[in-house]
Amino acid sequence: MKTVAILTGGGDCPGLNAVIRGVVRSAVGQHKWRVVGIEDGFDGLLHGLCYRELDLKSVRGILQLGGTLLGTSNHGNPLHYPVIENGETHWLDVSDQVVENFNRLGADALIAVGGDGTLKIAQHLYELGMNVVGIPKTIDNDLKATDVTFGYNTAVGVVTEALDRLHTTAESHHRVMVVEVMGRDAGWIALESGIAGGADVILLPEIPYNIERICQAIQKRRESGSRFSIIVAAEGARSRHGQQVVQTMAGDSRSGVERLGGVAQQVADEIRQCQDIQDMEVRTVVLGHLQRGGSPSPFDRILGSRFGVKAVDLIAAGDYGKMVSLRGRNVGSTTLAEAVDSLNLVDPCGELVNAAEKLGIMLGR
Amino acid sequence: MKTVAILTGGGDCPGLNAVIRGVVRSAVGQHKWRVVGIEDGFDGLLHGLCYRELDLKSVRGILQLGGTLLGTSNHGNPLHYPVIENGETHWLDVSDQVVENFNRLGADALIAVGGDGTLKIAQHLYELGMNVVGIPKTIDNDLKATDVTFGYNTAVGVVTEALDRLHTTAESHHRVMVVEVMGRDAGWIALESGIAGGADVILLPEIPYNIERICQAIQKRRESGSRFSIIVAAEGARSRHGQQVVQTMAGDSRSGVERLGGVAQQVADEIRQCQDIQDMEVRTVVLGHLQRGGSPSPFDRILGSRFGVKAVDLIAAGDYGKMVSLRGRNVGSTTLAEAVDSLNLVDPCGELVNAAEKLGIMLGR
Amino acid sequence: MKTVAILTGGGDCPGLNAVIRGVVRSAVGQHKWRVVGIEDGFDGLLHGLCYRELDLKSVRGILQLGGTLLGTSNHGNPLHYPVIENGETHWLDVSDQVVENFNRLGADALIAVGGDGTLKIAQHLYELGMNVVGIPKTIDNDLKATDVTFGYNTAVGVVTEALDRLHTTAESHHRVMVVEVMGRDAGWIALESGIAGGADVILLPEIPYNIERICQAIQKRRESGSRFSIIVAAEGARSRHGQQVVQTMAGDSRSGVERLGGVAQQVADEIRQCQDIQDMEVRTVVLGHLQRGGSPSPFDRILGSRFGVKAVDLIAAGDYGKMVSLRGRNVGSTTLAEAVDSLNLVDPCGELVNAAEKLGIMLGR
Amino acid sequence: MKTVAILTGGGDCPGLNAVIRGVVRSAVGQHKWRVVGIEDGFDGLLHGLCYRELDLKSVRGILQLGGTLLGTSNHGNPLHYPVIENGETHWLDVSDQVVENFNRLGADALIAVGGDGTLKIAQHLYELGMNVVGIPKTIDNDLKATDVTFGYNTAVGVVTEALDRLHTTAESHHRVMVVEVMGRDAGWIALESGIAGGADVILLPEIPYNIERICQAIQKRRESGSRFSIIVAAEGARSRHGQQVVQTMAGDSRSGVERLGGVAQQVADEIRQCQDIQDMEVRTVVLGHLQRGGSPSPFDRILGSRFGVKAVDLIAAGDYGKMVSLRGRNVGSTTLAEAVDSLNLVDPCGELVNAAEKLGIMLGR
Repeated sequence: MKTVAILTGGGDCPGLNAVIRGVVRSAVGQHKWRVVGIEDGFDGLLHGLCYRELDLKSVRGILQLGGTLLGTSNHGNPLHYPVIENGETHWLDVSDQVVENFNRLGADALIAVGGDGTLKIAQHLYELGMNVVGIPKTIDNDLKATDVTFGYNTAVGVVTEALDRLHTTAESHHRVMVVEVMGRDAGWIALESGIAGGADVILLPEIPYNIERICQAIQKRRESGSRFSIIVAAEGARSRHGQQVVQTMAGDSRSGVERLGGVAQQVADEIRQCQDIQDMEVRTVVLGHLQRGGSPSPFDRILGSRFGVKAVDLIAAGDYGKMVSLRGRNVGSTTLAEAVDSLNLVDPCGELVNAAEKLGIMLGR
Repeated sequence: MKTVAILTGGGDCPGLNAVIRGVVRSAVGQHKWRVVGIEDGFDGLLHGLCYRELDLKSVRGILQLGGTLLGTSNHGNPLHYPVIENGETHWLDVSDQVVENFNRLGADALIAVGGDGTLKIAQHLYELGMNVVGIPKTIDNDLKATDVTFGYNTAVGVVTEALDRLHTTAESHHRVMVVEVMGRDAGWIALESGIAGGADVILLPEIPYNIERICQAIQKRRESGSRFSIIVAAEGARSRHGQQVVQTMAGDSRSGVERLGGVAQQVADEIRQCQDIQDMEVRTVVLGHLQRGGSPSPFDRILGSRFGVKAVDLIAAGDYGKMVSLRGRNVGSTTLAEAVDSLNLVDPCGELVNAAEKLGIMLGR
Repeated sequence: MKTVAILTGGGDCPGLNAVIRGVVRSAVGQHKWRVVGIEDGFDGLLHGLCYRELDLKSVRGILQLGGTLLGTSNHGNPLHYPVIENGETHWLDVSDQVVENFNRLGADALIAVGGDGTLKIAQHLYELGMNVVGIPKTIDNDLKATDVTFGYNTAVGVVTEALDRLHTTAESHHRVMVVEVMGRDAGWIALESGIAGGADVILLPEIPYNIERICQAIQKRRESGSRFSIIVAAEGARSRHGQQVVQTMAGDSRSGVERLGGVAQQVADEIRQCQDIQDMEVRTVVLGHLQRGGSPSPFDRILGSRFGVKAVDLIAAGDYGKMVSLRGRNVGSTTLAEAVDSLNLVDPCGELVNAAEKLGIMLGR
Repeated sequence: MKTVAILTGGGDCPGLNAVIRGVVRSAVGQHKWRVVGIEDGFDGLLHGLCYRELDLKSVRGILQLGGTLLGTSNHGNPLHYPVIENGETHWLDVSDQVVENFNRLGADALIAVGGDGTLKIAQHLYELGMNVVGIPKTIDNDLKATDVTFGYNTAVGVVTEALDRLHTTAESHHRVMVVEVMGRDAGWIALESGIAGGADVILLPEIPYNIERICQAIQKRRESGSRFSIIVAAEGARSRHGQQVVQTMAGDSRSGVERLGGVAQQVADEIRQCQDIQDMEVRTVVLGHLQRGGSPSPFDRILGSRFGVKAVDLIAAGDYGKMVSLRGRNVGSTTLAEAVDSLNLVDPCGELVNAAEKLGIMLGR
């Protein structure tokens, strides 16, 4: 009988509970192993040792819940951990403490569910000799090592539903509506939900925007009788004339201070300067935390469940240092080392972007 | 055969299309009258005369659509209309022009659908001799002359769904989440959606809040093991120590400039100052325009439809100067004069507020 | 300190958990009383004594859940309880056993949440000297002693959403779609969801239908270019030429045998006989159990919560033999004796039915 | 300038309007071609010639609508067309008439959107010399020539939502609930929505079920404290002891007669015979037409839009006899000949089925 530990790190994401349930139902229900859930990400392996037993009963009814049963944390990077000494904050590598606490658990393996940051820590711990398996989590779909991961589909659904709602109010009031969505490096959420929600303009981090072209598009729409426009802007979008607005809203800043509506506000201000359309009302909406929450979509429940099962398969096979991933329709695995290597960005010349432009969507260029 | 004109004024609201459809199906379908739709509120009776015929076919498939088929406007108050002469803006009473344009239409009666502002204009036009019937529209439920009107139920639904979503993310991250919702004078949306969405703290314009008490409530929750809190704040909420934050976000400012997250930001900043809970992350979400848009709830579709039918009944009876209203389960009418008289505020000592407090919700006092 | 017992009886209903939570948060959280939850309705007071402690933690996260934490039963009518002796079933009054078990609990009062059946038992137990308070539950809105109760609003929402879905498929295929919904005695769900969902024909138990008139309406729609029709039929609807179809589907038969699609199938068969429209495809959908399940609407969460709080208020005041109720916008109470007295039926000549007909909806007459 | 004709055939499917909009926005908006929409599938090319112009305005607001703007038909198979002569029905190949009518249109190419049947006709017409491009449509995901097509994702969403609803009512009443879903040959909908909706048993056409094993699983669940079970059965599921129940419900029978609840009823009856669990209540729900209707999911809107754009690309390239398809994340094409060749069935030994079993789901074997 093995003991498996699991933790969830970084920003929360719909589908995390499906992963946890998948691990428990496979490990406990099929293999008759023991599963312990570490609380609040790596924090639970740092401040003493916070965990709880996860039996079959403890995961009942959680498949459809957003968030994570285990809690998460944005602080607990053991490679770069804030330690306050004599009133000053030092950033130390406290990996040894993590390994020590993990060993006290008596666990055979650790499943680390998280994004780029969490997976890098997982790889480091693997190099220190821990039996680690990773499960990728990235709500904005910016990890290259998997076709897609859970959470993204739900986020696209939330944004699309919001765009459906905003359409009728924009149209009734003849307004330009700038909607800011997640995506600091990769514009997938903006692109896919923009197509699904019938956006007129989509601004991505990957394609610096030209505000004059945007204003022309709005004006052209008005001339053809559509007196409103919906603009979807990824939080990492930037003007080709200027700099990227630093966003800390739906992302997870450490400072606890957030700047609301950075990109939405900037784009709105620039549009208000445009000559021909100065009489149009411009409004902004920042979807922020709404995109992370709520019940996962069927796709994310299934993918999360499969990832959980696959992680247990890897442990059963003693196949450590790996990350589960989706390729085409199949769940498989890759090495953690490869996984943390590079970002999955929107290809500005790819088929999806081309399709968007052929649908008449303006991509800011 | 009569000709009936209809217009929709002020901020858009789910259920407006149900009203229009109800008017047309009753007037055209049953009475065999003619209905014309004035475009963009009173604007359509000012700049020349903008309208379109509304036959049965033109209202097909609109029952479930948000917004208004006819467009709306926040500018067109004919009692106080901006006229630019020699580069200066004068505010004139141009009611005569409205009456003149209305007469050119050859319509027997006007149905004016709108909030406080629109209904006041309707009353004024009635006094000038026009055959006017009003239909109340107020998404934040602040009109006293009707128990409730369409749009409010949908808005409560949108906010409650958002709170459901935010719960899981707040809980996973152990955060305080401040959610700003509509309600400048009346806190109904905050109160009802807060109860429905399981809020921990609800801040209303009617009950000035004490930030110390709020922080104590958050701390007490944390001590009992709930390391997160959801605060719902009406945009008109104000500290008992200070002033109301001026809000122009989901409301309809004339300036075209908006201030994002006024109350949410202020409450969040104040909480961040609280001694005992300075280590907690505080985040804000401003629902803004999301609350106005989208498909109306069944309740709002039914009420809008009934209001439309009732307005036609009043016209058939030659009963002008009236506004349709809901009393208990019955649709009836009241005079426009009474209707615009006073606001429907939350009673700080009423049964609903008491029930909220007995449910353990903190109301800021 | 009081001890309060609560049970939920009869068919389940969205909002039951909100009631339970409301009782616990008020009784435990405010009054510092003890609350015990009886399991599976009166069954829990019959077979031995099945209950569990309900503290604040036990009701966390249940506000948005359908069903009932406590389970329910359609069997346990202690006034008419099946006892098998020598292979034969006898129906006995076992109220004494209920009282005895209740006394063993040491509870000061019982809150009985249920429909007509449950409330009659509650009244009987009150007459036997028990401190009983009732909370009305009727998903099809057929209780006269309250304007409306929780569950109904959610059911109307589920049916309306289904009608929205069926519209597009009916239209694409030029079909007549007969949709069977709950309502054995009272047609409220059919009427309100039919109006909200844009039904063309609505059949109620209160208005016997004339199939020839229905077929004429379908044919007339086709002539005007609408080659599809949506018919909403309450399960208790009946032809004026014939008899009511016995329905046991979404309702709760004791036999465990159900007959699917009684009314929908009958109406569809009759339409297929109609001369002029024999070439039209007719399809049926039976919504059945879907109408009982799922997350309660905001309205039902609020009303359930308020009912729970009010029941505790009544107990605090020692005001027994009462049922909580909604009148207008206020939650109050009535005697259980009155409450079980009569049904709340749709008035065939009332304002709501008239409004439906003025909207062009055919009511089968 | 080219003229492109488009038709939609077979059962309707969420995303068809996204396809039509994609074709029009690309062909008319970008290429400045003309697009005509054939009405009611191949019927529109048979009885005279029924079509309408599709300009940019005609596809406004349809992206989020279910069904098809153009109507569809299950009758119009020109290779096997019912012609009534002397009171007798003959089945003739009337392809020539289709070609003739198509030529009268003056169109350069035909886009045929449909399932297996429609695509076979398209291939036949291509062989007769018509410039045809196919777009695959199969709500139950049984076409091998594309990874997945639009409509399937929405259907899985509808079923999952229904399962979420039924869970609470099944649990409250301690019932076995048998839910029948689409899937005559392929069990994808049952499998994926069953995993997402937390089903306990899933029955697929690909895995004949053993009723004894199912009853044992229900009994085992009960022994472990879960007194309810959710069974999802594809309409094509069959007992290994018996024959497949003929289903014509959500599918499209030609007879106009339907048999409600075939598989659900059969499975429920068999469970009621099981010795150990005869005291459990068993209920059935047939989702039927609900699965076809309603607003398409974001995924289906995007995929439909991309398919529409790609079909226009193929026409622009003169690349006929092809069908668009999705492979991995890329939209490409295959020959129509290959496309109609074979079915995409669930692999009883594949990773997805294995994952389901490791999650503790019983697959009837």
